[in-house]
Amino acid sequence: MTEITLTNATLAPCDGATENRVFSGWLRLKDGRIAEIGEGSADGQDLAGRLVTPALIDCHTHLVYGGSRGREFEQRLEGVSYEEIARSGGGILSTVNATRTASEDDLVASALPRLDALLAEGVAAVEIKSGYGLSVEDEIKMLRAARRLEKERPVRIMTTWLAAHALPPEYAGRAEVYLDEVVIAGLRAAHAEGLVDAVDGFCESIAFSAEQMARVFDVARELGLPVKLHAEQLSHQGGSQLVAARGGLSADHVEYATAEDAEALARAGSVAVLLPGAFYTLRETRMPPIAEFRAAGAAMALATDSNPGTSPLTSLLLTMNMGATLFRMTPTECLDGVTCHAAQALGLEDCGRLGVGMRADLAIWDVTDPAELTYRIGFNPLHCRYFGGRKC
Amino acid sequence: MTEITLTNATLAPCDGATENRVFSGWLRLKDGRIAEIGEGSADGQDLAGRLVTPALIDCHTHLVYGGSRGREFEQRLEGVSYEEIARSGGGILSTVNATRTASEDDLVASALPRLDALLAEGVAAVEIKSGYGLSVEDEIKMLRAARRLEKERPVRIMTTWLAAHALPPEYAGRAEVYLDEVVIAGLRAAHAEGLVDAVDGFCESIAFSAEQMARVFDVARELGLPVKLHAEQLSHQGGSQLVAARGGLSADHVEYATAEDAEALARAGSVAVLLPGAFYTLRETRMPPIAEFRAAGAAMALATDSNPGTSPLTSLLLTMNMGATLFRMTPTECLDGVTCHAAQALGLEDCGRLGVGMRADLAIWDVTDPAELTYRIGFNPLHCRYFGGRKC
Ligand SMILES: [Zn+2]
Ligand SMILES: [Zn+2]
Repeated sequence: MTEITLTNATLAPCDGATENRVFSGWLRLKDGRIAEIGEGSADGQDLAGRLVTPALIDCHTHLVYGGSRGREFEQRLEGVSYEEIARSGGGILSTVNATRTASEDDLVASALPRLDALLAEGVAAVEIKSGYGLSVEDEIKMLRAARRLEKERPVRIMTTWLAAHALPPEYAGRAEVYLDEVVIAGLRAAHAEGLVDAVDGFCESIAFSAEQMARVFDVARELGLPVKLHAEQLSHQGGSQLVAARGGLSADHVEYATAEDAEALARAGSVAVLLPGAFYTLRETRMPPIAEFRAAGAAMALATDSNPGTSPLTSLLLTMNMGATLFRMTPTECLDGVTCHAAQALGLEDCGRLGVGMRADLAIWDVTDPAELTYRIGFNPLHCRYFGGRKC
Repeated sequence: MTEITLTNATLAPCDGATENRVFSGWLRLKDGRIAEIGEGSADGQDLAGRLVTPALIDCHTHLVYGGSRGREFEQRLEGVSYEEIARSGGGILSTVNATRTASEDDLVASALPRLDALLAEGVAAVEIKSGYGLSVEDEIKMLRAARRLEKERPVRIMTTWLAAHALPPEYAGRAEVYLDEVVIAGLRAAHAEGLVDAVDGFCESIAFSAEQMARVFDVARELGLPVKLHAEQLSHQGGSQLVAARGGLSADHVEYATAEDAEALARAGSVAVLLPGAFYTLRETRMPPIAEFRAAGAAMALATDSNPGTSPLTSLLLTMNMGATLFRMTPTECLDGVTCHAAQALGLEDCGRLGVGMRADLAIWDVTDPAELTYRIGFNPLHCRYFGGRKC
């Protein structure tokens, strides 16, 4: 079927307007795109008033990794000290070891149930970062696995090079050498293989400085790749300003961002990607400066940050609720944050909104008010999902 | 099929022991019960090492109600004042009005998707309270609807009389009259119809006092019905001591409970039912006294408190994660909290543990370590559920 009309729908365009705007109407899908949108009714498949939104987009995940940190989670709650957990091989290094040990097939197999959880809630595009291999070979293996997910499921995967995630023990005290030998050399190799859609780094006192990331971004610019950063999560390190100065896609986490950062991001068209799952898991109390982002007109996206250590979260709907409950975002901001603004954070111009010419990636819901998607907790009202004009 | 053996299973008995105890073994189910349990292997259906736990039990919900509070949730986040929301008919009274307007059929139909969300995560028993009718007729209508859910789905429903939830406007300033005319008269009528498994009340400065609840509990005792309370949620009102003095099933919420309350509950065999969904939604900061409950040996259960105002939550797995993340309970405490201790909170002795003679209500999971159930957020690894020995 290359053409279908969906009618008697409640349409939420998700165009970044501040109100929760919906209207009754119809959509004609043709050749994988939205060919026409109208108010009122038309001949076609009757959606019985159901809400139609763009399919959701998870614009920041670490979905591909080896192992689990469930035991470590338990140990911490049972009072085992961080030192003892680290001594027994816990923490991010346990994920690095498990990821290095895993084959590409293993990584695909273990990521699929997590991906399926996202898709079951109407997601059609997922960003996936490397960052647990920390060697050229293992970082590339992660991105190959991420790309393969696109063949396993009806989903669009955007890959991000995040070798600058942590310094592996074999490079202890030699961060600049790591940047040259792994982050930059690996980026060139991965890019040559067509594996890199964007370049990211963890810009934090415990990871890499803004100056170090600038050096990586110089190479990204040379290769024509967009950039983004894990920025101002635990302290203010200047990552947001670096992203803005480079016209980057997004600054992510940004709990410690300032009003000036918000203005710089807004001017640059860079998105503030908010990750309440990590805020919740780490029991942080410093909220990202939502009022400042609003005042500056900076776009805010929401993502799961799905990762084994600080956000083992695979529900974008719950992320929306956390955006409202923990960060006091409005339901409209939360929905835009996983549609149009998430698309912007990935540099995608053909999805994330209901508009003529956009990809026919749709989520159809058993509710009529978009606020219901954010309001409920642990409830999935998805009726069905369209990916490229096909129901799936 | 009246008999089946499940083998090559990882069994988590959930018997209230402090460690995360599992063993490889098998179970023989016969006539809806667990007939035999053994270590090692046996002939039978191969579970490939999957984890088997007792089916989960949600021991505190308000699952049956009319309407939605999604719009109100949105208004609050958009900055509309409480006064304005109340003036436009918001708050609990909007749920009371919608519940009064709804037919029994409407209540069943609107509760089913919420119930289905619970069952999809391995739940087999759900407590449901009245409390949004606030008239004899409407409270009874709620419990009739709750009981009907048991015919619609393979689930056990335990009903609770909660007419002492709030004072309806027509009784403003006449709480004692409301207690006589609705709470107590209705309790007698509902009990005569076989609709009441337990009696509950909201013991809080903004609702009913411990003295008022004692009067209701006198009638419960006369009728031979067990009691429980919403106690010490927003302040210390003495509800826990009242529950303990009456040998009640549980004191629920209990953020403001003291060490003395914990000891009294432990001595009485009353369960502390913790409701992190409400704590999360209301952004509370006062944690229930977990260390005191542990020290006293008080059993702790976890429940969704599923309700439209302060906990629109329909995931018991997420509740377990909240128990760990927000309340620092161990994964073993969280799992016991939705199995053996939840059964205790409902006065049920035939479920909530894996033991010979117990009901064959099982949850089978695509994980091997029980800690995974608590560790992940927004992820449902249920493989299948058994209810009364039948796979469903
Ligand atoms: Zn991240
Ligand atoms: Zn309650």
